[in-house]
Amino acid sequence: MNAQLHASRLAALRAMMQQHGIAACLVPSADPHLSEYLPEHWQARAWLTGFDGSAGTLVATADFAGVWTDSRYFEQAERQLAGSGIELVRQRIAHAPEHIGWLAERLGPGTVLAVAGDSLSVAGARALQRQLDASGATLRTDLDLPGLIWPERPVLPQRAVTAHPDAYAGTPRADKLARVRAAMREAGASHHLVSTLDDIAWLTNLRGSDVDYNPVFLAHLLLDTKRATLFAGAGRFDAALLAALAADGIAVRDYGDMAAALTALPATARLLIDPQRCVVALLDAVPAAVQRSEAANPSVHMKAVKSAHELGHIRDAMRQDGAALVTAMHAIERDLVAGVPVTELDVDRRLREARAAHPDFVGESFATIAGYMANGALPHYRATAENHASLALDGLLLIDSGGQYLGGTTDITRVWAFGQTSAEQRHDATRVLQGMIHLSRAHFPAGASGPQLDALARAPIWADNADYGHGTGHGVGYFLNVHEGPHGIRPPVPGGALVPLEPGMIVSIEPGLYKPGRHGIRHENLAVVRTAAETEFGSFFAFETLTLCPIDTRAIEAAQLEPSERAWLNTYHAQVEAALAPLLGATDRAWLHTRCTPV
Amino acid sequence: MNAQLHASRLAALRAMMQQHGIAACLVPSADPHLSEYLPEHWQARAWLTGFDGSAGTLVATADFAGVWTDSRYFEQAERQLAGSGIELVRQRIAHAPEHIGWLAERLGPGTVLAVAGDSLSVAGARALQRQLDASGATLRTDLDLPGLIWPERPVLPQRAVTAHPDAYAGTPRADKLARVRAAMREAGASHHLVSTLDDIAWLTNLRGSDVDYNPVFLAHLLLDTKRATLFAGAGRFDAALLAALAADGIAVRDYGDMAAALTALPATARLLIDPQRCVVALLDAVPAAVQRSEAANPSVHMKAVKSAHELGHIRDAMRQDGAALVTAMHAIERDLVAGVPVTELDVDRRLREARAAHPDFVGESFATIAGYMANGALPHYRATAENHASLALDGLLLIDSGGQYLGGTTDITRVWAFGQTSAEQRHDATRVLQGMIHLSRAHFPAGASGPQLDALARAPIWADNADYGHGTGHGVGYFLNVHEGPHGIRPPVPGGALVPLEPGMIVSIEPGLYKPGRHGIRHENLAVVRTAAETEFGSFFAFETLTLCPIDTRAIEAAQLEPSERAWLNTYHAQVEAALAPLLGATDRAWLHTRCTPV
Repeated sequence: MNAQLHASRLAALRAMMQQHGIAACLVPSADPHLSEYLPEHWQARAWLTGFDGSAGTLVATADFAGVWTDSRYFEQAERQLAGSGIELVRQRIAHAPEHIGWLAERLGPGTVLAVAGDSLSVAGARALQRQLDASGATLRTDLDLPGLIWPERPVLPQRAVTAHPDAYAGTPRADKLARVRAAMREAGASHHLVSTLDDIAWLTNLRGSDVDYNPVFLAHLLLDTKRATLFAGAGRFDAALLAALAADGIAVRDYGDMAAALTALPATARLLIDPQRCVVALLDAVPAAVQRSEAANPSVHMKAVKSAHELGHIRDAMRQDGAALVTAMHAIERDLVAGVPVTELDVDRRLREARAAHPDFVGESFATIAGYMANGALPHYRATAENHASLALDGLLLIDSGGQYLGGTTDITRVWAFGQTSAEQRHDATRVLQGMIHLSRAHFPAGASGPQLDALARAPIWADNADYGHGTGHGVGYFLNVHEGPHGIRPPVPGGALVPLEPGMIVSIEPGLYKPGRHGIRHENLAVVRTAAETEFGSFFAFETLTLCPIDTRAIEAAQLEPSERAWLNTYHAQVEAALAPLLGATDRAWLHTRCTPV
Repeated sequence: MNAQLHASRLAALRAMMQQHGIAACLVPSADPHLSEYLPEHWQARAWLTGFDGSAGTLVATADFAGVWTDSRYFEQAERQLAGSGIELVRQRIAHAPEHIGWLAERLGPGTVLAVAGDSLSVAGARALQRQLDASGATLRTDLDLPGLIWPERPVLPQRAVTAHPDAYAGTPRADKLARVRAAMREAGASHHLVSTLDDIAWLTNLRGSDVDYNPVFLAHLLLDTKRATLFAGAGRFDAALLAALAADGIAVRDYGDMAAALTALPATARLLIDPQRCVVALLDAVPAAVQRSEAANPSVHMKAVKSAHELGHIRDAMRQDGAALVTAMHAIERDLVAGVPVTELDVDRRLREARAAHPDFVGESFATIAGYMANGALPHYRATAENHASLALDGLLLIDSGGQYLGGTTDITRVWAFGQTSAEQRHDATRVLQGMIHLSRAHFPAGASGPQLDALARAPIWADNADYGHGTGHGVGYFLNVHEGPHGIRPPVPGGALVPLEPGMIVSIEPGLYKPGRHGIRHENLAVVRTAAETEFGSFFAFETLTLCPIDTRAIEAAQLEPSERAWLNTYHAQVEAALAPLLGATDRAWLHTRCTPV
């Protein structure tokens, strides 16, 4: 990147700060929908600094500028920030707001911190203000300083919005809206604002392609007790779909009309909003007379608990996805053994092509991570045309990939060993597998949360005095976001949410172990929570593994497994073979059979 | 109990409430030291209601009176409250302040809730007031309503206070006080109030016997930068001890002088107090001009991390305790086999006598739980002269007991099988043993807390769709309280503390499984956290089991164990035999050898 260009943008930002009497400006990685993937329009931090990693926060004062980011991006940020005068601040904990403490220590009484109100959640703004209180500084969210100095700011994407076919969606949108309205009634609310794109897509049975990988479209949704308005721009819907939406009481207006519609709410309204999932700029547009009721968007929990109809399609998508993986991996192995050169990019392409062969395939659910040897030790590695490895018949290949199908979203990680492996590699891969097995087979009482279970996956890795720096699992959407809460499996943190796992929730189980410069291991399956039993001790739940693809036993040391772990692995492989064999041709079926041989 | 007597006391309380314009009165189970065991003087709830379980909160309004308590006490409370007009309110979660929600819903604007300020922590008062805020009710803590109607209130215990001999205490009290003063300096504090009896006993190297089982004495301690005042009453120290204390800068004053001393603090003082460990009445006595610095008492963490000197004595106490248990259990088994009648009370007596044979034994660290068969299913069972079982050569005997030695505090639970056992009993005992093994052998990264590890002990029990309703482990004092934090191992709760486990901390590991009416299982060892390794992944810690006593393998099903679990058990038994055999006579040694036979 051009360091001088970014230095001049920083100078322009500082001039604007001075003009408005702003002591510090904070530029988060966020948009008005608090999405994981941001349209370029809201990538102000990347535009200002040149650092374009997915996570990072710019803090600028008159005499300091720094980007806070986590270990995934240290190397990239260092390279991209070099010469710009913007420092890299290494976060100890990913996603932790460590910059806030820094700011709170340095801002004096009467000083002002500016953050664009369309890039900060209501809850985030409150937390920020609370931390500033002690120093006497105040927060301004009505001033978008980066926006003021960004003349060539990219326009918003406005790609076509289409219906998620009823045969896949299952529950009609009218029924989903009725369930949300029932929750509104319970909260005494006359109106409800939804800004999160996965909630909107799920509620309306619509899908789009405005951002990478997540089949969502930019919109806000405002419900009242009878009608709903979708602020998405009518121009990208076809007439039939607009008519179908109208029949379900949904009018479509321009995206830019959202704030005005909130300002026009009647004084008698009572608005249900989710402070975690609504930006402060929109809440600020609501007249003071309007009462607020704050709670999680009702749709968050509704869409997290998959219906039987959805699960039926998901099981089908898992079979298709598994068969595609077997076909691709068999082809890659055949090439390698035959001496045909194979790079990480070829792996990426092969997987995409194999998945795309199925008519329900829409796209990838995230950028494939195909990391050979040391590259596998970078949990968020991505091979590029400039920078990628060629495979050999030696060591480990880590592949984390997933597909968006009309009937579900997949996400799977496997570690493949096509040739020689070292004892250390097999030992490590076995430890991680033990972690996946221990969590996958766990039963747990109703009310237990992911943070309560996280250690079950880590204990076998901790046994070697090792650990992995990411969560153990995330929720997954239904032909929606591959990271979709509210639940997840990660270590408990002070004040953190403890969302109970419930039957119907899908979660990834993906422990790992990364030895920088050497190799990386991660095994990942998706699993759905189901009821295991009702006993004198209450309700107990368990995971049912959904992902169907062999775990390469050449990469593990079977002798290291306890009998019960070995039994789990052999049972899993029997299920995989039974499910995938009918979908495969004879040679792939033979390869699958070998891969599923009991250990 | 006499229901009419308690009905009349409740009537007197209500008359006093009316006289003072109080809408509701709350009587917690607490004293000015926030102790687990209360002197009778502060057992106002028991005096008022007749219910004398260790946990329970009385809430009285003009037309309702109820005691909130947890499942341990449902049966006892029902019996003791019958006919008094005071209802039993069954808590869903032990120790949770569920009564506060009830009050907040019922108290109207302008109404007043009274709680004696010497029975409520500063933090507790704040939480209470916060919950009342929404309803517009206020909290009064300057009115001890039960005290006003309790003419025959028992006097405070004033038993002798003695020195914890230097050879055992290890660190001189002057050094401990210096460490606290360093923490005071860091907090900018000129004074520090300590009200918790374990902190005071540890800091001053003094012990007493004012309450049951915990070798503490009633006192408050006020430190300034040079001197300290112990509000305990000089009359119960001998002259030499008073002189020794004076030499260390500690003056002794009357217990009742505490509030006046706080009121006399200079306006320039800055007082360090622990809002969790100081009652609101004492903070209210501090002049408004005195600045406050709030933090955990520095001594809480200091005494939780045992010194090498302390650990040396603790290991010795564990050997003595284990040898005493072997002697007692062998004698009980011999009697049973010989047809000599043995009751649960005999077990209690035998254990006490065996422990008392050691010169360092001071007393029991809690009331022995010796529960045969169905009685073992009551986690806090206590055999009484009126109500106890006789043992037979059949089924399981659960014994949870512990000793106070000059060189440490022990706490151990074993399940014994002297005759026939059922497959279900052995299956259950094995599951619980697997839970104890999984946690006992865990390695974990620096920063991990008990709540993060709790599931490791539960998973094998959850596997049977069963669970236990108590925590997995508690901190333990050094010849001090058998329950002594700040750390512990229990499921994470929203907003709950996540205290990192650190090398030197002692914790119990005690999963259980209780089948009411049938049998109960609990296996409990104490363990100390130690450093396991420093690796490229950071510092890792592990538990070292301290408790030395065989686990009765007749009560388990060895075939149910995984090879690594079996290896753990056999290694443990080898260590137990090696440690205890030299302390035993020939016949006990032979019995120990049989009990330690590898499975």
